[in-house]
Amino acid sequence: MLQQEFLKSMRYLAASVSIISAKDSNDKPYAMTASSVTSLTLEPPSILVCVNHDASIHDHLLNDEAKFCVNLLKKNQQDIATLCSIKEKEDQRFEDKNWNLNSVPFLQGSQSNLFCNVKKYLDYETHTIIIGEVYQSHNDDGFDTLMYANGKYL
Amino acid sequence: MLQQEFLKSMRYLAASVSIISAKDSNDKPYAMTASSVTSLTLEPPSILVCVNHDASIHDHLLNDEAKFCVNLLKKNQQDIATLCSIKEKEDQRFEDKNWNLNSVPFLQGSQSNLFCNVKKYLDYETHTIIIGEVYQSHNDDGFDTLMYANGKYL
Repeated sequence: MLQQEFLKSMRYLAASVSIISAKDSNDKPYAMTASSVTSLTLEPPSILVCVNHDASIHDHLLNDEAKFCVNLLKKNQQDIATLCSIKEKEDQRFEDKNWNLNSVPFLQGSQSNLFCNVKKYLDYETHTIIIGEVYQSHNDDGFDTLMYANGKYL
Repeated sequence: MLQQEFLKSMRYLAASVSIISAKDSNDKPYAMTASSVTSLTLEPPSILVCVNHDASIHDHLLNDEAKFCVNLLKKNQQDIATLCSIKEKEDQRFEDKNWNLNSVPFLQGSQSNLFCNVKKYLDYETHTIIIGEVYQSHNDDGFDTLMYANGKYL
């Protein structure tokens, strides 16, 4: 009963849709769709993201040298958002021509790309809260952010 | 330059609007508007919220006995959202007749009320990340969540 009500509340909690991207030490790229990206501090510019232990990207974010990108998506990026949330399609995640994989992977044409150094992480039950300090940020002008709530994209 | 771009990214990061409410050990109620509420885990049902050290509610959330409520707002609750974000109007925050102050303070007529026990907190620069385990959740049916992005309510 509590869990059903909690799930309903979480459906009502609208959020932006982002893709988190990073590489492992062998230069292999990873990406996952997340709605748990939150602004944390302005000084220094920092955000946090909650990542499930089971996500393939998870372990590659847990060291002090790790970097990642938060790609805040636009409304026309629903397809890649869905692709990067389906476990069975994991090997197709980087087929999109808009990926730039030269260094820290990022998705061109996004609303914003926030490049982060991992600063701290906190383990909690099934997830890890990862704090990233933003060292570079790029924005496309004009607010057109993809959101998700109540089981669908907004 | 980085900070300006970061601020722009954070304007593009759309989020639901919530009011966090709690009492201190003398039964005095506190409330603050927050857009940093994020779903964390389903088992146990948990959320997190980022609170500035300067917020009057902050210190009253930092003990293992603390409880708080996340009131996820509806679109018709813009006025109380604005009121609970203006420092100078702090003494007016509980004038609204929809507050129930019997136990953990909560705002009736919200989209959702999530009652939480504080489980863990992590200090980071100007803010504390507070993890709450939800022990009770109430929802109003029909998705009508108040959101904020690009400097205005959505």
